[in-house]
Amino acid sequence: MFNSFGNILRVSTFGESHGVAIGGVIDGFPAGVTIDFDAVQKELDRRKPGQSKIVTQRKEPDTVEFLSGIFDGKSTGMPIGFVIKNTNQKSKDYNHNTNVYRPSHADYTYDKKYGIRDYRGGGRTSARETANWVVAGALAKQLLAHISINAFTSSVGNIFIDKPYQDLDFSKTESNIVRCPDEKSAEQMIEKIKEIRKAGDTIGGTITCVAQNVPVGLGEPIFHKLHAELGKAMLSINAVKGFEFGSGFCGAKMQGSEHNDIFNPDGTTQSNLSGGIQGGISNGMDIYFRVAFKPVATIMQNQQTINSEGEATEIQGKGRHDPCVVPRAVPVVEALTALVLADFYLMDKTRKI
Amino acid sequence: MFNSFGNILRVSTFGESHGVAIGGVIDGFPAGVTIDFDAVQKELDRRKPGQSKIVTQRKEPDTVEFLSGIFDGKSTGMPIGFVIKNTNQKSKDYNHNTNVYRPSHADYTYDKKYGIRDYRGGGRTSARETANWVVAGALAKQLLAHISINAFTSSVGNIFIDKPYQDLDFSKTESNIVRCPDEKSAEQMIEKIKEIRKAGDTIGGTITCVAQNVPVGLGEPIFHKLHAELGKAMLSINAVKGFEFGSGFCGAKMQGSEHNDIFNPDGTTQSNLSGGIQGGISNGMDIYFRVAFKPVATIMQNQQTINSEGEATEIQGKGRHDPCVVPRAVPVVEALTALVLADFYLMDKTRKI
Amino acid sequence: MFNSFGNILRVSTFGESHGVAIGGVIDGFPAGVTIDFDAVQKELDRRKPGQSKIVTQRKEPDTVEFLSGIFDGKSTGMPIGFVIKNTNQKSKDYNHNTNVYRPSHADYTYDKKYGIRDYRGGGRTSARETANWVVAGALAKQLLAHISINAFTSSVGNIFIDKPYQDLDFSKTESNIVRCPDEKSAEQMIEKIKEIRKAGDTIGGTITCVAQNVPVGLGEPIFHKLHAELGKAMLSINAVKGFEFGSGFCGAKMQGSEHNDIFNPDGTTQSNLSGGIQGGISNGMDIYFRVAFKPVATIMQNQQTINSEGEATEIQGKGRHDPCVVPRAVPVVEALTALVLADFYLMDKTRKI
Amino acid sequence: MFNSFGNILRVSTFGESHGVAIGGVIDGFPAGVTIDFDAVQKELDRRKPGQSKIVTQRKEPDTVEFLSGIFDGKSTGMPIGFVIKNTNQKSKDYNHNTNVYRPSHADYTYDKKYGIRDYRGGGRTSARETANWVVAGALAKQLLAHISINAFTSSVGNIFIDKPYQDLDFSKTESNIVRCPDEKSAEQMIEKIKEIRKAGDTIGGTITCVAQNVPVGLGEPIFHKLHAELGKAMLSINAVKGFEFGSGFCGAKMQGSEHNDIFNPDGTTQSNLSGGIQGGISNGMDIYFRVAFKPVATIMQNQQTINSEGEATEIQGKGRHDPCVVPRAVPVVEALTALVLADFYLMDKTRKI
Repeated sequence: MFNSFGNILRVSTFGESHGVAIGGVIDGFPAGVTIDFDAVQKELDRRKPGQSKIVTQRKEPDTVEFLSGIFDGKSTGMPIGFVIKNTNQKSKDYNHNTNVYRPSHADYTYDKKYGIRDYRGGGRTSARETANWVVAGALAKQLLAHISINAFTSSVGNIFIDKPYQDLDFSKTESNIVRCPDEKSAEQMIEKIKEIRKAGDTIGGTITCVAQNVPVGLGEPIFHKLHAELGKAMLSINAVKGFEFGSGFCGAKMQGSEHNDIFNPDGTTQSNLSGGIQGGISNGMDIYFRVAFKPVATIMQNQQTINSEGEATEIQGKGRHDPCVVPRAVPVVEALTALVLADFYLMDKTRKI
Repeated sequence: MFNSFGNILRVSTFGESHGVAIGGVIDGFPAGVTIDFDAVQKELDRRKPGQSKIVTQRKEPDTVEFLSGIFDGKSTGMPIGFVIKNTNQKSKDYNHNTNVYRPSHADYTYDKKYGIRDYRGGGRTSARETANWVVAGALAKQLLAHISINAFTSSVGNIFIDKPYQDLDFSKTESNIVRCPDEKSAEQMIEKIKEIRKAGDTIGGTITCVAQNVPVGLGEPIFHKLHAELGKAMLSINAVKGFEFGSGFCGAKMQGSEHNDIFNPDGTTQSNLSGGIQGGISNGMDIYFRVAFKPVATIMQNQQTINSEGEATEIQGKGRHDPCVVPRAVPVVEALTALVLADFYLMDKTRKI
Repeated sequence: MFNSFGNILRVSTFGESHGVAIGGVIDGFPAGVTIDFDAVQKELDRRKPGQSKIVTQRKEPDTVEFLSGIFDGKSTGMPIGFVIKNTNQKSKDYNHNTNVYRPSHADYTYDKKYGIRDYRGGGRTSARETANWVVAGALAKQLLAHISINAFTSSVGNIFIDKPYQDLDFSKTESNIVRCPDEKSAEQMIEKIKEIRKAGDTIGGTITCVAQNVPVGLGEPIFHKLHAELGKAMLSINAVKGFEFGSGFCGAKMQGSEHNDIFNPDGTTQSNLSGGIQGGISNGMDIYFRVAFKPVATIMQNQQTINSEGEATEIQGKGRHDPCVVPRAVPVVEALTALVLADFYLMDKTRKI
Repeated sequence: MFNSFGNILRVSTFGESHGVAIGGVIDGFPAGVTIDFDAVQKELDRRKPGQSKIVTQRKEPDTVEFLSGIFDGKSTGMPIGFVIKNTNQKSKDYNHNTNVYRPSHADYTYDKKYGIRDYRGGGRTSARETANWVVAGALAKQLLAHISINAFTSSVGNIFIDKPYQDLDFSKTESNIVRCPDEKSAEQMIEKIKEIRKAGDTIGGTITCVAQNVPVGLGEPIFHKLHAELGKAMLSINAVKGFEFGSGFCGAKMQGSEHNDIFNPDGTTQSNLSGGIQGGISNGMDIYFRVAFKPVATIMQNQQTINSEGEATEIQGKGRHDPCVVPRAVPVVEALTALVLADFYLMDKTRKI
């Protein structure tokens, strides 16, 4: 049950970075949706390794194969099975580390919890899993054709976009390799990542996501509030350390008289510090939130660590890793956002007679 | 299903602020736990209104009545039903606002979603619901007697504790009415809240929570990571706008070489920017996280707003409200933390043969 | 999670026969349904003890108190909490049996599983729990006002109604105390039960249930087929040993050429051996099924048994028990049928765009 | 959520009879179980088409490919993904029936519910799905190595084994093609099926299943009683019309004084009309139940029917179908029994401290 996500629209996934394939089952996808396969692949391409100089140079085509649930180009209401073959797993890269616990990775905790560990490249803990989410999210986007979801890199290290999202042109996000719609910031971020990579280091960053044209009424209090599910989804992404929506942590410094969003006669609000959600339910305004990513734990420098016998040892990152996870995480943030919204969209159909 | 929380240990709640009673069913609580009823009531008393000058002056005893699942002072493994009667509901306080949408409250979204709204004091959206959580959390704490969970007020407005939590004495948290273990900061916070109250305004703040002696192995990847469930739980609390754990948003500015937690030979780590969780699973180090609360939306000032007909109107807060929600939310944060940990504690029993 | 029933419409219950109260939370009941409280109580009265000479003479009013989720006479979409106080528990009746395992009761299995047992009248295992289901089912019936659900006693011991259900007048079910719409059979059944009671014995029977005007499309393959959920629901009732729908066990003796239901041009079928369900989905024809109840295990005769120390002992039924559970189970069968159908009715709203 | 089965051990499946592949995700399988791949394939071979003269002559190797969750021959606690390729789909067999509703099939209900239908061989409604269950069940059997589960054909049409199961030698079940451990009955059944096949007809039957060495304590009242979940599982199998356990429908004719199972000093019982389950929890005695299968709906005779336009038409079964589904359903019954027991086995670990 713990490798499943969502309620009515429910995705169950499987797969390790160095196994035969990853994949999953998308259950509860309604019948009658025309599936745009190219759009799915396009989302996968945004996430795939090797796409630019500032991401891992590992090459994998990440081609999704749908196995069921689609007939004559339309969803049938049956579960949609899919697989993505692992074509570039090089287990031998990892053979030297079979019993070493990499710092700030999950090697230690998996070993203790399960008593056995697939040490090849992180196994199930690898961010490779997020390719599954992108597939499911791409379908969810097609179900929610009327909603637009735009995520983008809002900071890398100390380099932040210094504008509100309203002043950005989301169509520019894909115009640069760091996926930042502010061109000047984008250049600085790219430079920063190149510099970090050269030093064999890694760096953190944040992603902001904006969902627009979301209908009023999505979200299910008390325990499935819209922002709580978005937060859970984002915190499920590898390397995420924080989530805030609307006024977020800044809101905790404010007073009610300045924080309240005053209504317009049509039900919209003059400000939107609520972030499009009141009481856990969408209010029709833009939903926006911000996600913090720590720096990737695998660095190309020597680190002291221990092995499963508790012996001190040294480790040096090898292989092909991301100096900054943020650019490739942008489509992942969008995918999970789409999945959350689609699930609530379906659920809301049952709430009144 | 959406008024339920947890998996193996599952709490299903009901109740509105001005109905007959609130309550719930705690399912999956294991048999054989000796129940300390006084400890439960003590937690409720920490949350109850009217406890000090800086919280709402509404008076409610908040006495819990257990209806099942406990026999001869021990849990039987059967569902534990409980109710807390509403003794101080004054619906007439609200009769003047029956069709007015209060700014930054959930009146508008509930009305649109359900087509009907219990306008008495927020109905289901009231933070009164959190009393249910405190009951369930108090039982979860008894199940996890070996784990210590300490939450405290870490900021009010711009007043922050300027020490790491390691330098605080948690036994002092209950020694002042704002629940801040740093005495100097506590005084400033109390003054600030009094000043804000006098101005008819409200103010936000943050709560930090630390869980210690958590065994290694709690958390269920991929979609029920320990920090993701903690985040979801915290984001379920009324007025919460953000969640971060370990290095949090600061971690997004750091480099891998400074962020990684290096192991000691015994599996502990020299630093703990991971916040006690690696790959979604507890690693035995302290778990700590921070929660942002916006200022309470009900203020004692005139505000422009609209009613359900879309007509402009004016509203002024009446009744007895909190100028700052944070002091009373401290036991709520602890309660949900206990529920999350207890659920994972039970689940972990099934993970290896 | 295991004291909950249903998916979208989800009932979570609690309570023991000799505790303070039983009750539950009905979650997912849609907003806007006008609640007929008298109709709920009327269903409870059909189930309550002491209603006739052929059921237990225990007297309990079984008055339900709704605590939330209903406002101005309508459901609000919020969880509906309710309690039924236990007014006639006489624990002393049971004090002599605190460690004795009654034959064919669940004393032994509960003790072994939980290590603790509420020995007062069966505790959680008592059929008193079914009063909770009748409350929830009565609300579900109101949600499904267009569907008619009629259960009735179809056999007691070897006395069977010898007509197909189509020849019965369901309006007569409540005209006799055994709830059999065939008057001649009813008289025989009543005589049989009186005779059995006089002998200090008990007897089994069957209930047939017919749901009519069910819309086409209810049921969720592969693992929530309509008949599978009905079967699970019925097998959850105390004392049930079997379930069959449509042609049932007789169908296992037939050939395809005689068993197939041939279509009429309007999609109805000429015969209905399918029992209104094809592939786990309702087809618009009558849904009918049959449920087998074993004789009540508590008899007024001496029985050899053991206690928790494994010592041989003798037990004689005391107290006030049903000689035949079937008459009082009729409203329970209807209630669970309504809950299953209502859940699928809501779910079906999400299945196509 | 509706193509998933189980709670802690949860199987989510996908696939249509004429798609690329079927498969699924097995979640919650504990770490550390040595996997016997041959044993899995052996179970699939018991179910596969073309294995004898009395089943469908369609040939499919039904080879399962595991994609994740197993490392160095052991389960890792990660989800186990698997696929079975469809190698013998001949969609053209079905092209003539694209809009015809076959009598007593699910064509009509799927079309009405989803508004779209994969008409190739039944699509998702095909019993091909049960191959997925056999894979998952074969793994569950390995987890429950100490429990023995034996299903067998107990009747075909009017031919019944006339002995109690205690007098049968389960090791003979696989010695004949109808899977009946009573040799004389087996011969009669085989003759009957051959005769039926020659007539272009089909015939129903029953399967009995016995689970032995089940530990005391499996089952989760109130709504996940062991027999209720077994019943639901069995009713999920294609063509099943009824389920009874222990005394079953016969029990409904009995009196309490003859039906009660009297205890022996060691907690076993002298008789076992309870069928190894009391109050929804296993009591350590043999669990046994019986499942009724209707005759296969596809017959090689002309039948009147309608198409999706409501026009009368005639249909004749083509292709390669089973004259009696029972022999191939025997391993399916065992597989689902194993899945149910394994899920409860894991769950029971959480029930007391």
